[in-house]
Amino acid sequence: MGQQSLYTVIPDGSITLPKGFKAGGLHCGLKKTDRHDLGAIWCEVEAAAAGVFTTNLFQAAPLLVTRESLATGQGKLRAVLVNSGNANACTGKQGEADARQMRASLAEQLGVEPHQVAVASTGVIGELLKMDRVSEGIRQLPGKLRDDRKGGDDFCQAILTTDLVQKTSCVSVQIDGQTVTIAGAAKGSGMIHPNMATMLGFVTTDAVIGPSLLQELLREVTNVTFNMITVDGDTSTNDMLLIMASGLAGHRELTREHPDFAAFAAGLRHVCTELAKAIARDGEGATKLIETVVSGAVSDAAAAAIAKTIIGSSLVKSAMFGADANWGRIIAAVGRAGQPVNIETVDIRIGDIVVLEQSRPIPFDEDAALAYLKGDTVHIYVDLHMGEGRATAWGCDLTYDYVRINAAYRT
Amino acid sequence: MGQQSLYTVIPDGSITLPKGFKAGGLHCGLKKTDRHDLGAIWCEVEAAAAGVFTTNLFQAAPLLVTRESLATGQGKLRAVLVNSGNANACTGKQGEADARQMRASLAEQLGVEPHQVAVASTGVIGELLKMDRVSEGIRQLPGKLRDDRKGGDDFCQAILTTDLVQKTSCVSVQIDGQTVTIAGAAKGSGMIHPNMATMLGFVTTDAVIGPSLLQELLREVTNVTFNMITVDGDTSTNDMLLIMASGLAGHRELTREHPDFAAFAAGLRHVCTELAKAIARDGEGATKLIETVVSGAVSDAAAAAIAKTIIGSSLVKSAMFGADANWGRIIAAVGRAGQPVNIETVDIRIGDIVVLEQSRPIPFDEDAALAYLKGDTVHIYVDLHMGEGRATAWGCDLTYDYVRINAAYRT
Repeated sequence: MGQQSLYTVIPDGSITLPKGFKAGGLHCGLKKTDRHDLGAIWCEVEAAAAGVFTTNLFQAAPLLVTRESLATGQGKLRAVLVNSGNANACTGKQGEADARQMRASLAEQLGVEPHQVAVASTGVIGELLKMDRVSEGIRQLPGKLRDDRKGGDDFCQAILTTDLVQKTSCVSVQIDGQTVTIAGAAKGSGMIHPNMATMLGFVTTDAVIGPSLLQELLREVTNVTFNMITVDGDTSTNDMLLIMASGLAGHRELTREHPDFAAFAAGLRHVCTELAKAIARDGEGATKLIETVVSGAVSDAAAAAIAKTIIGSSLVKSAMFGADANWGRIIAAVGRAGQPVNIETVDIRIGDIVVLEQSRPIPFDEDAALAYLKGDTVHIYVDLHMGEGRATAWGCDLTYDYVRINAAYRT
Repeated sequence: MGQQSLYTVIPDGSITLPKGFKAGGLHCGLKKTDRHDLGAIWCEVEAAAAGVFTTNLFQAAPLLVTRESLATGQGKLRAVLVNSGNANACTGKQGEADARQMRASLAEQLGVEPHQVAVASTGVIGELLKMDRVSEGIRQLPGKLRDDRKGGDDFCQAILTTDLVQKTSCVSVQIDGQTVTIAGAAKGSGMIHPNMATMLGFVTTDAVIGPSLLQELLREVTNVTFNMITVDGDTSTNDMLLIMASGLAGHRELTREHPDFAAFAAGLRHVCTELAKAIARDGEGATKLIETVVSGAVSDAAAAAIAKTIIGSSLVKSAMFGADANWGRIIAAVGRAGQPVNIETVDIRIGDIVVLEQSRPIPFDEDAALAYLKGDTVHIYVDLHMGEGRATAWGCDLTYDYVRINAAYRT
C-alpha cells in the first residue's frame, strides 16, 4: 500500500477542479423525469486526450464519431458532449448522422472544430434520438458551463440513467513540485429500456502529458480498474472512458522516466479504481460491493481471469446476497476459470474468516461469517500458492431487485 | 429433420428397457427426506462403456475413481453406483478412500471386480460421506435391482436432489434389422447445499459397439447436447455422463462404416438432447425453456459460442422471465461473444416474430410477442448471414426463485 503516499484524496473534488475545465448539464427532454440528460465538459485550452471503448462489435454511433475525433485531432480534444436517455445504438446511418450533428452543433456553439469534440450516449437501444430536443439543448449548453463544483455536479447528473448515486473521485499529486489534480466522473449499470450495463467515465486533469503516453497509461489503468468490474457479464454497446489533460499545471511534460510519473499513474489509478468500485457497488439491484483478491497465481493475467470468474458467478453472487459463506461455489469458480491451479494448495478467506486452507475445509464460526457477510462490503481472498500473479476484481451481489429491474417490461 | 425417421421415440421407456440391464434405488439416509438417495445400474454381461467428465479442475473423488475403472477395465463396466445428498467433493484423501470403498463394496455384493464398477455422487460439497449409511445401503441394493420400469424409476429418484421432475428419454433404432434400444436418465441443477448445477447422466443400450468408438461418439454427441446447456454458467465439480452398451441386441458390431451407424448416432443424440433440454427446463427457479438457434455463422464452433453467450446472458434470461422481447440484449450478447459477426447483416427472430432484419429494428406486434413469451418454451433465432455454421443451445430464464434458492443460507 506504499502507493497511498503518492497522492492525496480530495473528497469534495470535481471534474472542474483541474485547471482549465468547465462542465455543466441541463434537461433537454430525453428523460421522462426532469433530471438533466445533456451535459458537457469544456477545456479552455486544447487538451491531450485518450479513450478506451467497448469491445462489443455493435458499437454505438457516438463511439464511432468519438474515435474519429481522436484520430483526426491526433489525440486532442476541447469538449465532450454526453446525453443520457438514449444510447443511439443500433440506429444505423441515421444514428451516425445524428451523432455527427451533435458534435458539429456543439463545436459551432463553442467556436471549435468538430473533431475537437467527443460524443457519448447512454440509454435506450434501437431508437432514434429526438434531435430537435437535443439541438435546442446544445444551444443552451454553453451558458450552463461553470468551473465550480455545481458545474461538475450538473454534468454528473446529466450522465446518469437509473444509477442511484453520482460517482466521482478526485486526487492531487505533486509533479515537479506543482500540484496536479486528477478528477473523474462515471455512470454505471442501469438503463430504463432495454436495460444494459452501460459504463461511461470521464477524467480531467491539468497534468502536462502527451496524447500517446496518456493513451498507453489509460489502457494500462483501465485493465486493472474498469475492466475488473462485473455487474452481470454483459458488455454494453456504449462503454466509453475518456481522459482530457489540459496541461495547465505547468510542470515538465510527463514521460515514463519523469520522477513523478509513478505518482501521476498512481493517482489516475486511484481515481479509476474508486469510480469502478462505485459502479460495481451501484450495480442493478445490488446491496453490497464484493471485492475479490486472487494472489499466488502463475501470472497477473491468470489471477485476473480467476478473480473475474469468481466475481461473475451467479452462484457466488446469490450466496453473497444471502450472506452465505459458501466457499464451495468459490472453489468451483476457481476450477472452471481455465487457468493453472494446483488443486492441493488453495486457501480461501472471506473477510478475516479462513474457510479453506491447502484445499481443505476449515471449520469456522458461522455466526461470525453471517455477521460479516451482512455488511455492505465483502472481501474474498484466494491464494493459489503457485506464483506471484495477483489481481483484484469488483462486483456486486445478485438480488431479487436485479431480476425485478431486468424483467420489467420495457414500456 | 430427416434424422427423425432414423429412430422411434419410446415415451414410456426406461434405462432398464435395453436388454441386459437392471436398475434400482433405495433410501440409505443421506437425504433429509425419505426419498431415495442411493441407486445402481447393473448389466448382466460386461458392457462396453464410455464417459465424459467435468472440465472443472476440482473434480470430485467419484470422478477420479470412475476414470480409473474405465482405464483399468479398458472401457468395460458391469455396474454404476450413484448417491445423492453428498457430492463427495473437496473431501481430500478420505473422500477418495470413501469412493473406493463404495466401489469395492458394491463389486463384492455383485461378485465382480472393483474396476467393473463406476461411482457418481451429487449433493453437498466439502462434507464427508456418512459411510455407515452408505455401506448398509449398498448391502441392500442388489435386492432392489429390477429389469422393469419400476427399477428405472427407483434409480431416477435416487439421483435427484432438488430437481422437480425425473428426466428420462428412450428411443429404438433398427440395426441389421434388429431392434436396438437406447435409454437415458439424468439429473440437473439444484443442490440443497451448497447448491451447484451438478449434472449426472446415464445411458444404457443393448447395441453392439466397442468402447473406443462408443467413447468417440459420446464425446461428439455431448458437445452438441449436454455441453450446449447453461443454467447459470457454473460448471460443477461432479458432472459426469456415462454410457453402457450390453451388446445383447445381437447385430454386427457397429463401426462408422456400418450402414446403421447413423441411426444409432441419431438415436443417441436424441436421447441426450431430450435429457439436456429437460435439465435446462428444470434449472433452478426456471419457468421456461429457452432454445437459441444461431445459423449463418462462419463455423459451427462460432455459432455454438454465440448461442451459448446469448443463453448465458443474465439480461436475456431476465427479459425472458419478464416476457420482454428485448432484442437489444440479444444483439449485445452476439456482439460480445468473441466471434466473427458482420454487424450489418444480423436477423433476429423470437418465435415467429421478426425483431431485427439486416441489423435494423423491425416494428412488431408487442401484444403478440408478450403472448408468445409468456409460454413455457421460447425460441430465439439468430441468422448472421455469413456462412454455414449452425448451433443450438438451451437454457432457462432467470427468476426471483433462482435468487431465492441460491441465496438461502446453507442450514
